[in-house]
Amino acid sequence: MLRNGDELVNIVNTQENLLNDMINGVNWAYPGLEKIDGTHGIFDSTFQEGQIPLISGGGSGHEPSDWGFIGSGMLTGAIMGDIFTPPSASEIVAFVTKALHQRKVFFIVKNFRSDIHAFCEAKKQLIANGWEVGMCVVADDVSVNNNSLKKRKRGVAGTIFVSKILGAYARWGASIAELNAVADKLLPEIKTIGLAFSGSYIPGTKQKTFYLADNEIFYGVGIHGEPGYRKEKNKSSELLADELVNKLQFNFHWRSDEQYAVLINSLGGMTTMETMIFNNDVRQLLEIKKQKVLFSKVGTFMTSNGMQGISLTLLRMLNHRWLKALQEDVKVPAWS
Amino acid sequence: MLRNGDELVNIVNTQENLLNDMINGVNWAYPGLEKIDGTHGIFDSTFQEGQIPLISGGGSGHEPSDWGFIGSGMLTGAIMGDIFTPPSASEIVAFVTKALHQRKVFFIVKNFRSDIHAFCEAKKQLIANGWEVGMCVVADDVSVNNNSLKKRKRGVAGTIFVSKILGAYARWGASIAELNAVADKLLPEIKTIGLAFSGSYIPGTKQKTFYLADNEIFYGVGIHGEPGYRKEKNKSSELLADELVNKLQFNFHWRSDEQYAVLINSLGGMTTMETMIFNNDVRQLLEIKKQKVLFSKVGTFMTSNGMQGISLTLLRMLNHRWLKALQEDVKVPAWS
Repeated sequence: MLRNGDELVNIVNTQENLLNDMINGVNWAYPGLEKIDGTHGIFDSTFQEGQIPLISGGGSGHEPSDWGFIGSGMLTGAIMGDIFTPPSASEIVAFVTKALHQRKVFFIVKNFRSDIHAFCEAKKQLIANGWEVGMCVVADDVSVNNNSLKKRKRGVAGTIFVSKILGAYARWGASIAELNAVADKLLPEIKTIGLAFSGSYIPGTKQKTFYLADNEIFYGVGIHGEPGYRKEKNKSSELLADELVNKLQFNFHWRSDEQYAVLINSLGGMTTMETMIFNNDVRQLLEIKKQKVLFSKVGTFMTSNGMQGISLTLLRMLNHRWLKALQEDVKVPAWS
Repeated sequence: MLRNGDELVNIVNTQENLLNDMINGVNWAYPGLEKIDGTHGIFDSTFQEGQIPLISGGGSGHEPSDWGFIGSGMLTGAIMGDIFTPPSASEIVAFVTKALHQRKVFFIVKNFRSDIHAFCEAKKQLIANGWEVGMCVVADDVSVNNNSLKKRKRGVAGTIFVSKILGAYARWGASIAELNAVADKLLPEIKTIGLAFSGSYIPGTKQKTFYLADNEIFYGVGIHGEPGYRKEKNKSSELLADELVNKLQFNFHWRSDEQYAVLINSLGGMTTMETMIFNNDVRQLLEIKKQKVLFSKVGTFMTSNGMQGISLTLLRMLNHRWLKALQEDVKVPAWS
């Protein structure tokens, strides 16, 4: 990753080969994750045609997203672009055309303008070639723009819950129409808010996306280092948890005794110790606020190139099959 | 984690409650990992008495080690001390006495003077109370002291392979004597060497264990920020891999066509992208050097409080049951 005042990443050969080197490393580590030649895409070599393949993707720099979630019961493949830059429509089309024989695919897309543009254009081209294409757009970030008070609705860590739940439905045999119907109910119930102790590095520059004072935090940042809604001094894990839980409570307008799934996600540079301390405070708060947690996951799922920070995602569990889907065993690199 | 020039960690409440907060967070995240009251120990609540329990431990600050490896087929429990400070003998004795009813236990200890002192004293006390106690000391680090040329033999990331293999043998029903016999053959075949881009933070101070110039690397560091054997400018992932693979080749005196298991371990602050790029270079080198890799694992297993760095562990696979043991399915937090 790029370091402060340092144009080079620590472990890298050349910027040109960054993606290929990473993809080869992934393939050595997980031989079942197949490189699709001529693309920056990775595919589940054990995929059984007949079920609907789920393909995610976008810019790189968010690892282990998205390839860390490839495997039966979760994603079928992931197509990536340069750091923070989504693949083009033609790269997406080339990837699915090479990887899949059946002309059916479902895309999971994060809500950023350039991502949506690329996947919508790919969808159009595939449909013109006789494909059936489903698609959902994850917009779980409830951070607001402080000037306009408009919700930012970026697609962030909640995408992992979408991949897990739709992945289970796909393995259970859901059609594209059924996956779209599940996504329609599921997506509005997933909300995320993050905070950072440092900006992300902007590739090829000596700049970070933003700078903070010593021991300052920025609430509501995005996964490409987009700005948040407030800066303040960091005081304690408890107060960090309080701010994020309150923001989500406000956005859900929750009543007592609702049921949730929790995802706590390191944006990259947190120690496991810090992540677990934060988890303790979040869970105590949810208990005090009389919200029942049916499922939880704590770890590193969707990162932001060099950013120190953490995000909290809640999913309101309106459907008991969502719980079954979250609990289903999968063997993928980053969901243990 | 402690930041440069900053006495506070980013996500923390009080230093006094650091361990309890983390342990509570772990227990919320993994309800099967049970806190043992009055100790800083975590225990596998699904443990079936009858098989030999494997207990590891030492100072904290190395998360996900050791609690991340608790579960059937790997560790039975972990007892931790403050950051970089092992638990005392009486804390170890209290933990195993509260957690276990059968008077049998096997300790996996990392080779640091204070760790060995605590576990040996605990062993003595337990034996005096009628327990049967097995123990092995992992000393996989092949870094040398540049002045004396003496090997440092610290216990580092290779400990993860020891826990996985002995854990499988314990689940297969091995006795303490049999576990000791496996360890006697296994331990000399595990060798590790690491490198760092930054020192670790020293708790309660504004100091790091060492300081490096911009883009400088330190080869051969330990997991508490102990010094390495050489500093030089960082040039490329390929050259980092070359240095570490050559050091291990020299220490194994390997011939062509030997068989190895590979563990690539982030010491904390690496991105998944960097780890995979390094993996690609290591695996290409091993192929060029005609060493066959039967098993590999890449991720974050044993860290060093705030250190940016990576380590490479090789295990010479002299016994086909070691491979079966590595491949056995386990459900633990940090081995996906």
